[in-house]
Amino acid sequence: MSWSIDSKRLTAELATLAAISDAPAPAVTRVVFSETDLRARQYLKALFADAGLEIREDAVGNTYARWHGTDPGLPAVATGSHVDAIPNAGQYDGTVGVLGALEAIRALRAGGHSPRLSIELILFTAEEPTRFGVGCLGSRLMAGALGSSAGERLRDRDGRTLDEARAQAGFSGSLDSVLRKPGDYAAFVELHIEQGPLLERQNLPIGIVTAIAAPASLRMTIEGEGGHAGAVLMPQRHDAFLAAAEVALAAERAARATGAIDTVATTGVCEVFPGAINSIPSRVRIELDVRDTDVARRDQVLASIAAGVEETQARRGVRIATEIINADLPARCDPGVVAALEAAAYGAGLPFQKMVSRAYHDSLFVSRFAPASMLFIPCRGGVSHRPDEFSSPEAIAAGASVLAEFLGRASA
Amino acid sequence: MSWSIDSKRLTAELATLAAISDAPAPAVTRVVFSETDLRARQYLKALFADAGLEIREDAVGNTYARWHGTDPGLPAVATGSHVDAIPNAGQYDGTVGVLGALEAIRALRAGGHSPRLSIELILFTAEEPTRFGVGCLGSRLMAGALGSSAGERLRDRDGRTLDEARAQAGFSGSLDSVLRKPGDYAAFVELHIEQGPLLERQNLPIGIVTAIAAPASLRMTIEGEGGHAGAVLMPQRHDAFLAAAEVALAAERAARATGAIDTVATTGVCEVFPGAINSIPSRVRIELDVRDTDVARRDQVLASIAAGVEETQARRGVRIATEIINADLPARCDPGVVAALEAAAYGAGLPFQKMVSRAYHDSLFVSRFAPASMLFIPCRGGVSHRPDEFSSPEAIAAGASVLAEFLGRASA
Repeated sequence: MSWSIDSKRLTAELATLAAISDAPAPAVTRVVFSETDLRARQYLKALFADAGLEIREDAVGNTYARWHGTDPGLPAVATGSHVDAIPNAGQYDGTVGVLGALEAIRALRAGGHSPRLSIELILFTAEEPTRFGVGCLGSRLMAGALGSSAGERLRDRDGRTLDEARAQAGFSGSLDSVLRKPGDYAAFVELHIEQGPLLERQNLPIGIVTAIAAPASLRMTIEGEGGHAGAVLMPQRHDAFLAAAEVALAAERAARATGAIDTVATTGVCEVFPGAINSIPSRVRIELDVRDTDVARRDQVLASIAAGVEETQARRGVRIATEIINADLPARCDPGVVAALEAAAYGAGLPFQKMVSRAYHDSLFVSRFAPASMLFIPCRGGVSHRPDEFSSPEAIAAGASVLAEFLGRASA
Repeated sequence: MSWSIDSKRLTAELATLAAISDAPAPAVTRVVFSETDLRARQYLKALFADAGLEIREDAVGNTYARWHGTDPGLPAVATGSHVDAIPNAGQYDGTVGVLGALEAIRALRAGGHSPRLSIELILFTAEEPTRFGVGCLGSRLMAGALGSSAGERLRDRDGRTLDEARAQAGFSGSLDSVLRKPGDYAAFVELHIEQGPLLERQNLPIGIVTAIAAPASLRMTIEGEGGHAGAVLMPQRHDAFLAAAEVALAAERAARATGAIDTVATTGVCEVFPGAINSIPSRVRIELDVRDTDVARRDQVLASIAAGVEETQARRGVRIATEIINADLPARCDPGVVAALEAAAYGAGLPFQKMVSRAYHDSLFVSRFAPASMLFIPCRGGVSHRPDEFSSPEAIAAGASVLAEFLGRASA
């Protein structure tokens, strides 16, 4: 059978959520625990309650909205995603997996489904690393991949601790209490835009994810020597920005050198101090993101970058301190859940392909304590993390209908 | 004869001025028309008034403090410098030429000098380009090197116009009224720290400047294509930051390639948008400063940079827009003033060498309407534009005594 997705309502709710933003439309900026993030959470919790779901929030603000099954002693079937957004992002990353899941649950309820296993919609805290430098903060704590003591040491750029920020947002209690254990969930599926071009190119509505690439995130602080741009002669310089430029170009070369299409490296952050046109940069901070579906290949890129850093450091007489923010292992998705998603796609009458996720997601960490996979839908041009990110209402509804089909079968 | 400089008072006044700062000591940040800049001006005007000088301010805040000569119809002998400071700068750049000149004038007065020509101390507005992107704003307007209509179009990074900023600081009237004309001054000498290592290395207390290098300042806006750092594959990228990195390294190579020690190029500003670790930079703004004492050689470096920009633009599929903020001509100092400074150094009993200024100064623009030169004193390690910038009280007093000797002779 096929569950009836109300695409119009879902589209309207996505638009309402998109308007809760610190950037002008169509851009979305929603940084974790900002007033804007808290307003988005209020909006979503009201929708969850309207749909008859019971809401619980944990110590870091992960929000669980549950439809109790007839056999509540059994592990739940879970779905969900995030709604935080990097500065100047788009409207669909994460949000489709929250509001699409809600719509899937409402479709099941309207269609007369009575779940034996409970169905739980999870809104994860801070999938984006914008504020605390660590991606998937909520799911990472759920999986124990970030210990509570390490979590307590996290600070944002203004020096505010995670503890202060979550307390101000109304979330308290030990971070240890966020931890989930194997057996809590029978399965987890995250609906998400692909953030890549493959489904669109092949005109396919559904991707079923078999593996998730994972990033290594590096922060480098480069200390050179400042001075007046007119007075310090070229041979006497130790310019921190030119060293940063070399490291960024070395990272690009290293990623291209693997010859594998799945290897990517990005320098997305560069802050120059003092940052005046007539002053030689004395200190620069850069942040790099290196990803692959193959961890050995990723580590090879990291080694190449480290060699480049050594060489630049010695030649330019600068000091480069590298901090590994995280270096998570890629995940293989659960074969049982993948098979169940294939069956659900057949059930919904939609063609699909199996694929890997090059972006990483909360599913990466959920897979450590629950059988997990992801459902991808196409997005225009593969564009994401930009204001022009776009998935059509039809594409989103198709994803929600396969998710409903899966949740219905898995909870029966 | 030698005039008696009160080094203790001068040192104390420099320390008081240094404490009027938006950065914690020993750093100094004093951006034009900030509250801090205005407090520094109040402090200085009180000192000028105490010294019996008559004060006048023009439409852009250049401040003229005059000791009237017995023959006020004659052109004045002038001296002065600036007190604005780039973010996180030091305590001596500019300030030594203002408070040192005041001390020289007080020494002349205390020593019974009665000037025939008036002596004028000029406090120039915004020698540093920090706020409006253009260095030597005050002297540039005095020289007519920046027209009043171009001046009215200047904006700071917050979009505030120069007109709004100067009105808020209490300076109004047409910018045309700032213009000075040849004949206003018989001579101008600026006392300044060297901002280079030569005097210290040769253990010489005084440098007499024969030429001033001038910078070309460029602002480049690089438009690439953003996207998710995990999802966009390397061959599909148009990363604006990597293009900026190549341009900065090309500028360094071009400056070194001239083989001349006087050629320097610096990329001091780099702003990355959106600036998130998991987002490919879509737009980057960089600012470059290229200087030489030889304008043909400087233009050759600019041509090399432009060629590098073309190449990067084509290869990476990005758009690079280059705006020339300014490209001033280097200046040769007035031989008569240079000779008078040599005589003054002999008179003060201090050894000197003649040298070029690699940094540029308000003197560059004053030289367009008055016979001008500069007096340099050593600074530790040649360091400037940094919190550890330092000139000893003895070095500053030596500079002030040669300046007093010069002002005394030139005004007699």
